[in-house]
Amino acid sequence: MSLRHQDIQPFHVMDILAKAKAMQEQGVDIIHLEIGEPDFATPETINHAAIESINNQQCFYTPSLGLALLREKIASYYQQEFDLKIQAKNIVVTAGASGALLLALGAVLDAGDTIMLADPGYPCNINFARFLNIDTCEVAVDESSHYQLNINLIKQNWHDQVKAVILASPSNPTGTIIPKQELVEIYNWVKQKGATLIVDEIYHQLVYDIPVSSALSVSDNIIVINSFSKYYQMTGWRLGWCVVPESLLAVMDKLSQNLFLAASTPAQYGALAAFDPETKKILEQRREILKQRRDYLLDAIQDLGFKVPVKPQGAFYIYADCSAFSNDSQKFCQQILEQSHVAITPGKDFGQNKSEKYVRFSYTQDIETLKEAVHRIKLFLYNQ
Amino acid sequence: MSLRHQDIQPFHVMDILAKAKAMQEQGVDIIHLEIGEPDFATPETINHAAIESINNQQCFYTPSLGLALLREKIASYYQQEFDLKIQAKNIVVTAGASGALLLALGAVLDAGDTIMLADPGYPCNINFARFLNIDTCEVAVDESSHYQLNINLIKQNWHDQVKAVILASPSNPTGTIIPKQELVEIYNWVKQKGATLIVDEIYHQLVYDIPVSSALSVSDNIIVINSFSKYYQMTGWRLGWCVVPESLLAVMDKLSQNLFLAASTPAQYGALAAFDPETKKILEQRREILKQRRDYLLDAIQDLGFKVPVKPQGAFYIYADCSAFSNDSQKFCQQILEQSHVAITPGKDFGQNKSEKYVRFSYTQDIETLKEAVHRIKLFLYNQ
Repeated sequence: MSLRHQDIQPFHVMDILAKAKAMQEQGVDIIHLEIGEPDFATPETINHAAIESINNQQCFYTPSLGLALLREKIASYYQQEFDLKIQAKNIVVTAGASGALLLALGAVLDAGDTIMLADPGYPCNINFARFLNIDTCEVAVDESSHYQLNINLIKQNWHDQVKAVILASPSNPTGTIIPKQELVEIYNWVKQKGATLIVDEIYHQLVYDIPVSSALSVSDNIIVINSFSKYYQMTGWRLGWCVVPESLLAVMDKLSQNLFLAASTPAQYGALAAFDPETKKILEQRREILKQRRDYLLDAIQDLGFKVPVKPQGAFYIYADCSAFSNDSQKFCQQILEQSHVAITPGKDFGQNKSEKYVRFSYTQDIETLKEAVHRIKLFLYNQ
Repeated sequence: MSLRHQDIQPFHVMDILAKAKAMQEQGVDIIHLEIGEPDFATPETINHAAIESINNQQCFYTPSLGLALLREKIASYYQQEFDLKIQAKNIVVTAGASGALLLALGAVLDAGDTIMLADPGYPCNINFARFLNIDTCEVAVDESSHYQLNINLIKQNWHDQVKAVILASPSNPTGTIIPKQELVEIYNWVKQKGATLIVDEIYHQLVYDIPVSSALSVSDNIIVINSFSKYYQMTGWRLGWCVVPESLLAVMDKLSQNLFLAASTPAQYGALAAFDPETKKILEQRREILKQRRDYLLDAIQDLGFKVPVKPQGAFYIYADCSAFSNDSQKFCQQILEQSHVAITPGKDFGQNKSEKYVRFSYTQDIETLKEAVHRIKLFLYNQ
């Protein structure tokens, strides 16, 4: 067994999930607010396109960078939605955003290089780095920077081995967004240092209060990671993409050939329907539903005594300070599960920065279920 | 850009493919014998199972190690076909054999460790290693060992940094198989050295002259890689599996969670039908067709003057010595493409061991097409 993975943690929520599953098998009604997956099924339009391709026996390998038509559609999406001129050749279709992150980190960073990232953040990013013997510079972020890296934090924590910075906007777990002006300053700094800026936009269109924008509006010299999982609700299909600068295209191609051969063909054919007006109509309705849920849950948990100092503006998560009730959020989550039958994710899954004082709620259940969850948690917190 | 990938070569066949595509666009009729992909479409039974799951909205993430039912079916397959007791918990369902190889190498080897492998061999193996900063000990193999590693070659080339050996049986590109007794000796040596044996069985059931067997019959302390791509003809679905020893299960789980989240859900539901008797009937008919093609093409190219000193007994490749015609097989392949309109793969894609004297033919076309290809190559070789 290698040492490569000794610092890679399994998801701590798996302990919660295993316990929840055991309880469910004994007939307990568990409300799941721990999972990073929309509760909506893949839109019928996408399913239909995938099924048609399967019936047409289009299940052979695609080119390693993806179906030409899909790459064109993704490029057109940036043009139509954001008036950004992205060429299809700069689009790399990947096996989920996971595939894109592995390619991006591998293309940009050597063993011993450092990547800078926010804590709390998406846990897999650190683990991708560890898998590739890349060092991490985890920068603690809090409400003062909207739980995001900003130019001051980046400057304060910079050192010569930092070769890349990864941002996520909206962020998992905090749902916060990096303002464009901040992004411009960060990009300029990173560029000046000869490093690479990677922006995770996998919750890109799941934004509720402000217009959606892309880091590509700052520069096309940024690696942007996206996914069909979250907004397009294709989680299990495992399909994502990244937009890469010209200079990295050949490297991404050969890495993609060797590491993946190509992304799933039925998923790619399905995704051809993802940008159709009919699909967009479904997805926008669902986005509105997610917004309503956020509005409800954000108020409700603050009423309970959780603190959420920065309003989450995107994704489908609320990262809540539970220190009014506990300074051991892993234990707190277990208690809520055992006594309230509500599953939420401990902060520990997102980093080490005061994570024992935080929990993440996913609003991936309908409002009635969210109300029931809040009711149960209220009983747990105040009536025992 | 990182240095990590500087020694990773793109597939040289891509040059051939790009030229072939340009010629096709000008109306030239190209015969493709270069691609490592069966020409058969995915069996209808598998398509049907996948479509049913899509219609049932079963497109959410599966557990990271795969659907429980699929893991059980894979375990049962070893029981039923080979009388091997493999438990479902030892099965890891992956994003193609590619995903399995990345997990296996990452789980077993650290940066600076060495993996031993045969040259010629599957090119991605070396590139997976380079991507993970693992050193390679490439051992030249020839007809004297049936183009496979054997115990003597392994002993001769062993050094203290070797922490794993990877074998492929049947091999890509040579189609040759490692006899069980040889495998036993190799396993015992590797075990005694405290290293790990990985056996790539992705062409496992595509064997023509002898009974199929698995390295798991030697020991369940071997990592076996398999795939739904080749025998089950699910290439574009990107689904594979590996069988891993007890000691690696927890590591494989956390790596799979972090690197992939999970394999494609529609692919997994489709694969539930892969072991049905009805599917097996289709696949066995196709295997018989592949055998007939091999028998034809093997004789025909030897009649042309290519040398194939060891009969390929599996996969769908013939690795042929073309030194009677050329000592620059990349150039030779280009000439055959340009003048005969037949695409084959240069040996260079499979290593550095006299690879300039070899080409690989894939018999992934029907016999009539193979005959036409042979006819064209004959004209090229003798009538110019």
